[in-house]
Amino acid sequence: MLSGEARETIVCVTALPSVSYSITVRLEVPSGAPAVSQLTNAVESAGGAVTALDVTASGHQRLRVDVTCAARDTDHADLLVEAMRLVPGVVIGKVSDRTFLMHLGGKIQMDAKQPIRNRDDLSMIYTPGVARVCMAIAKNPDDARRLTVKRNSVAVITDGSAVLGLGNIGPEAALPVMEGKAALFKRFGDIDAWPLCLDTQDTEEIITVVKAVAPGFAGINLEDISAPRCFEIEARLRELLDIPVFHDDQHGTAIVVLAALYNALRVVEKDISDVRVVMSGAGAAGTAIIKLLLEAGVDDVVVADISGVVHKGREGISGELAWLAENTNKLDVAGTLKDAIVGADVFIGVSAPRVIDAGDVARMADRAIVFALANPEPEIDPAEAIKYAEVVATGRSDFPNQINNVLAFPGVFRGLLDARSSDITPAMLLAAARALASVVTDDELNASYITPSVFHADVHHTVAAAVRRAAGGPEHLPTDTEVAL
Amino acid sequence: MLSGEARETIVCVTALPSVSYSITVRLEVPSGAPAVSQLTNAVESAGGAVTALDVTASGHQRLRVDVTCAARDTDHADLLVEAMRLVPGVVIGKVSDRTFLMHLGGKIQMDAKQPIRNRDDLSMIYTPGVARVCMAIAKNPDDARRLTVKRNSVAVITDGSAVLGLGNIGPEAALPVMEGKAALFKRFGDIDAWPLCLDTQDTEEIITVVKAVAPGFAGINLEDISAPRCFEIEARLRELLDIPVFHDDQHGTAIVVLAALYNALRVVEKDISDVRVVMSGAGAAGTAIIKLLLEAGVDDVVVADISGVVHKGREGISGELAWLAENTNKLDVAGTLKDAIVGADVFIGVSAPRVIDAGDVARMADRAIVFALANPEPEIDPAEAIKYAEVVATGRSDFPNQINNVLAFPGVFRGLLDARSSDITPAMLLAAARALASVVTDDELNASYITPSVFHADVHHTVAAAVRRAAGGPEHLPTDTEVAL
Repeated sequence: MLSGEARETIVCVTALPSVSYSITVRLEVPSGAPAVSQLTNAVESAGGAVTALDVTASGHQRLRVDVTCAARDTDHADLLVEAMRLVPGVVIGKVSDRTFLMHLGGKIQMDAKQPIRNRDDLSMIYTPGVARVCMAIAKNPDDARRLTVKRNSVAVITDGSAVLGLGNIGPEAALPVMEGKAALFKRFGDIDAWPLCLDTQDTEEIITVVKAVAPGFAGINLEDISAPRCFEIEARLRELLDIPVFHDDQHGTAIVVLAALYNALRVVEKDISDVRVVMSGAGAAGTAIIKLLLEAGVDDVVVADISGVVHKGREGISGELAWLAENTNKLDVAGTLKDAIVGADVFIGVSAPRVIDAGDVARMADRAIVFALANPEPEIDPAEAIKYAEVVATGRSDFPNQINNVLAFPGVFRGLLDARSSDITPAMLLAAARALASVVTDDELNASYITPSVFHADVHHTVAAAVRRAAGGPEHLPTDTEVAL
Repeated sequence: MLSGEARETIVCVTALPSVSYSITVRLEVPSGAPAVSQLTNAVESAGGAVTALDVTASGHQRLRVDVTCAARDTDHADLLVEAMRLVPGVVIGKVSDRTFLMHLGGKIQMDAKQPIRNRDDLSMIYTPGVARVCMAIAKNPDDARRLTVKRNSVAVITDGSAVLGLGNIGPEAALPVMEGKAALFKRFGDIDAWPLCLDTQDTEEIITVVKAVAPGFAGINLEDISAPRCFEIEARLRELLDIPVFHDDQHGTAIVVLAALYNALRVVEKDISDVRVVMSGAGAAGTAIIKLLLEAGVDDVVVADISGVVHKGREGISGELAWLAENTNKLDVAGTLKDAIVGADVFIGVSAPRVIDAGDVARMADRAIVFALANPEPEIDPAEAIKYAEVVATGRSDFPNQINNVLAFPGVFRGLLDARSSDITPAMLLAAARALASVVTDDELNASYITPSVFHADVHHTVAAAVRRAAGGPEHLPTDTEVAL
């Protein structure tokens, strides 16, 4: 417990304006007028602090001023802008906050690994020396994995059709997410990923494009491609390519959900083959989760979507839904999600906000597990769910047990690349989920800690090693000398 | 002049084994035998030096040893390997030389520009913070040039059909060249380029693929795509895309040739509009050079290919050749290259080895200029050509006046990107050539120095500034603050 004084100090500290929430406001003011000093006063009266003030253009009538000020949080930042807007004569232009400034000019770059200092370097890195390296690969194509960036590179590919929860925003607007993904690949998997945001949403064209660019990469990470096209694109590419094709929205999510379920079951002391699972959502993520749960030995699972429970007799189902009707719901029950959830041990939602309530959770089996993964608003408020469930997880970072794909994809691809794997199989996904679950030790495990932090030192290399072995890769990684020769 | 002693010293230095020509030889020897010390003796007796000797695997019968030794040059390195092969019981495995070791694991990598240290960083670089950046670009697509890597990125694209002088070696084998190109883009233009080596040589598919990947890039550099497909691919993509499409084999070569010609004409004191130019070769490079020469004001130019001079009456010509017949050869003469070269002021070869001889050069006009650019063996031995021509240039790095595309493409793209140009025009190519020529001052200019070194401090930013202005970009580059807001 903190003493009264200590708590007081913390409150003061968090209430102070911070450079973490710094914004820069480009505005115009009349020149010669006292507007500039009025701006500073306005910001300070509103509880902010001006940390920089640059006059970036000047004329006889007007000044253009970039005002940087520290705010307490993003709402407070808005307040500061409004305070400046009220200063007479001020015209507010662009406002940039810290998040935007972090994205400025992009979040990734290409770097050369060798210095090019003189003609000798140039002759080895480029012509004429490079010709011998080309001919070595022409003779033995496998050498591309030894002598080129292909060894360590993954293409992060989207068509911009289902980006985060934002929908079909197109390729340019998807680029910040794909760059972020590439940055995470590097940070957590030491992988060189490059984003390719495609100017087409035609299934055949996407397949043609991905197949065409594949030679330079050792893996394909499909991202934010809407269902049901994503199923066909992934399946067809897996047939066509000799490198693994991973759709993170499906397989990444499935791995992390299964890992969290393994640990939740450890908490509630139930066996995976005995539990009844009810799932809300039969899209890309839901279908992939179901497939992996079946691989993991779940015997009793029922899926519901917006039209109710998926069962063999339901009209108008085809494709993946028909597959789900055949392979889940062993008692072939009909009805609604709310019917199905009664008595269930596990609820997994990858659907929409507020599809169940506390009463539904109360009607689940004892020691219930609720994963409400819709983002940003879950299927049920986790504060409500925890009243009746023993373990609750969400996709949100402001609640314990975050189900976060960043826990899986860097390690999964690290393992695939280290094994030079030509594909990715359910056995590898299972191995990844088990490895991820195993990072949480028996001593650490509890109802609020079923998933480790993405910054946990063991997460990514543990997942990578498990996937490498499941992919038939070496027990131990080769040393640099061994790679060289 | 060097004294006898000084010359002696230099000879000794260059004859010593050097780490620049170091090789690593993986071999097996019988264990327990004196083979290892015999290896060292063998290398030293052959004039090399063992610089490292690692036992990388050991058994009862055999040792695996990696022997690194310094040689005088690549031929000497081969000699050292043969010397070791003669040691009793030795089995030679893989041999890696310095060039191969420089390519090991690839020459480029992707780096994140921002550290990801904690959940706060993660929330800004990835979800949920990134969503606001995506929405900003969805509202204003131009913001992709401000908030993503698109601002500074170029795709280096090949189908592997005409790689260096190696021919159709395919996409994987082309990758070392494209990576090298990306490394040069960074070194000389501070540009983030990524190689895409395509698994298709179908014109329509290549167009589809390049169009699809374009949203994430600010420019397309086509590379080593064979003629005549390269003409159509480039022309169609220029129609389809809102970013510049540059085929380095055509436009890069044309810029550097014109720049060299400008300076050669300064040396021989002739005016570009008065000279007669004869060209050998009507492929991608030749055609692009002709087009740029015409833009630059050359009035009298005759092109010959393997079937002789291109003229209107020649049978069976179509496409680019028909265009050349219409737009060159104003006297509409027929005949052979050797007929055409008589009395010419300038010979430019982008064709094949030894198509002209010293007698042909002797029959050119006074103060003749010869650019023999076939690689690695020029149209005429430069030592022969210089007997009768005043200025001789080649594509080779071991002769003065190297015509090297690295002089052009980094600066050209830097200029295009800084101007946010949506295309590339002949005016921009001309500006690049003039700027490149201008780097050689009147004081420096002579018959052996018509092109600057690629390491010359002024080359790339001078070309970049000229292209940026020709593309309608700003006179001065914006400051970081101006870019931010």
